[in-house]
Amino acid sequence: MAILLSPIGAPAAHWQREFARLLPDEEIRVWPEVGDRGDITVAAVARLPDGELANLPKLKLIASLLAGQDALLSDPKLPSVPIVRTGDPGGDELMTETCLAHVLRHHCELPAYAVAQTHREWQPRPRRRADERRVGILGLGAIGTAAARKLAGHGFKVAGWVRHARSEPGVEIFAGREHLQAFLARSEIIVNLLPLTPETIDLLNKDTFARLPEGAAVINIGRGATLVDDDLLAALDSGHLSGATLDVFRQEPLPKDHRFWSHPRVTITPHVARRLDPAGIVARIAENVRRLRAGEPLAWLVDRSAGY
Amino acid sequence: MAILLSPIGAPAAHWQREFARLLPDEEIRVWPEVGDRGDITVAAVARLPDGELANLPKLKLIASLLAGQDALLSDPKLPSVPIVRTGDPGGDELMTETCLAHVLRHHCELPAYAVAQTHREWQPRPRRRADERRVGILGLGAIGTAAARKLAGHGFKVAGWVRHARSEPGVEIFAGREHLQAFLARSEIIVNLLPLTPETIDLLNKDTFARLPEGAAVINIGRGATLVDDDLLAALDSGHLSGATLDVFRQEPLPKDHRFWSHPRVTITPHVARRLDPAGIVARIAENVRRLRAGEPLAWLVDRSAGY
Repeated sequence: MAILLSPIGAPAAHWQREFARLLPDEEIRVWPEVGDRGDITVAAVARLPDGELANLPKLKLIASLLAGQDALLSDPKLPSVPIVRTGDPGGDELMTETCLAHVLRHHCELPAYAVAQTHREWQPRPRRRADERRVGILGLGAIGTAAARKLAGHGFKVAGWVRHARSEPGVEIFAGREHLQAFLARSEIIVNLLPLTPETIDLLNKDTFARLPEGAAVINIGRGATLVDDDLLAALDSGHLSGATLDVFRQEPLPKDHRFWSHPRVTITPHVARRLDPAGIVARIAENVRRLRAGEPLAWLVDRSAGY
Repeated sequence: MAILLSPIGAPAAHWQREFARLLPDEEIRVWPEVGDRGDITVAAVARLPDGELANLPKLKLIASLLAGQDALLSDPKLPSVPIVRTGDPGGDELMTETCLAHVLRHHCELPAYAVAQTHREWQPRPRRRADERRVGILGLGAIGTAAARKLAGHGFKVAGWVRHARSEPGVEIFAGREHLQAFLARSEIIVNLLPLTPETIDLLNKDTFARLPEGAAVINIGRGATLVDDDLLAALDSGHLSGATLDVFRQEPLPKDHRFWSHPRVTITPHVARRLDPAGIVARIAENVRRLRAGEPLAWLVDRSAGY
């Protein structure tokens, strides 16, 4: 029995140290040094080349190292073993902080002042209070819920768009496609935290942007393919949207010739909203390995049909 | 008996409405329509031309409309009547929010990513946690204390530099000139909230910048003349400081030809860290007018010798 590890976001040695600390009795093999494929029962990976996981005959569990499952689930030969999440079920503190930083930046009109600075223009703008600002979060999973709570705690008027109705204190809930337009119409700053699924791909397009109020801002720290690049640029160029902050893109690194780089109302960060936390991730893998070995039900299961 | 009002930050009618609501029995005269100077017992002003207040023979009280007293106290003929502050003694919520927004922006390395974007460079940087980031607040008055508490609540390691030692839960206190160097040496992001006095003018100069750790950032939302412009530019150009966010300047509006406008590591906002709140200000003026008329001790007195 061995665990196949495909390190990401931190050096392999860093991951191995955490595995040695928390699962001292397990043999860890670092991809692509797989050794005897019949030994591997657990794969801790972001994604591997298509078909690679299908080549592990004794695989019992896939532990996904990333918050989004789209890359893993896109493998057409993905074996039908359980997939478990490894992110903190209470949300990711750094992701929540990133969300607050970008929302405050748009709320305080810093993107507009940055444009004014390039023209040497001294133009104070009316200042709004947080309780006069309506922020909308697309997706209230562990991360979205933590972000919504943080923003509501700061005083913003926060709404969340979700698939299935539920309640969340201090957050106005809009559930399902039939309430997406109402959610958009009331949101001056939207933050995308949706997983990438067949239902969410291209969701942020010219129709959805048109539903946002004049001057709204878009923050995408979810997945690049949720947003239609040309539609965003058109909405910014028409003046309908005031700005966009993008951390994720259809192609990463963002190609040098992409129009986003030079657009005065687009702020780019290189996929840094979150920091992988090997210690926390390996702790959650260890819990599921323990359950697997003991024959107990697994925790934090990915729903393949939902895509997250 | 009449109150002389010199409106600032909001239309005169807005101020007059608040005075009519809270001090319905007082006559309000809007400068420069002073009328009979002998009627004026209270002046609610930011500042007036030098000598103007000395020309009010029955003046008993000056209510300062601004957070900083430097402009008012610079009048060489300022009469020796009590001066009272009118800001919220619990701090200014918008100022606290501005402080958090700018600190988060530097903490999340957004200024460095903005520079990278101009070069179309995709360069993720190591991500720090808030509890790994040391923020220093210069000046713990009402506003500085509220800002320090907010930042500590977010998880930052916060220190404050003050004139006289006192304790503040969750905030490391450095008191007096003799501890300024130690305060600077431990602060990766400093926020200036000091009043402008003979002791604080030019305080942020080449010597103080040199004491900050390599890569530190400077946020000035206090007073422009606390910071020596050329020394800041030199510290940025040498690479010793990573960036600066400036809301206040020696001359406002900032002159079109000032080097700050085009410096890639300087972020400029046009003196918008705070929003005047006429309702709250007039409420505090009303309380002191009531005390004045009743012969009770005044509240929120400015210490002229200290300058704030």
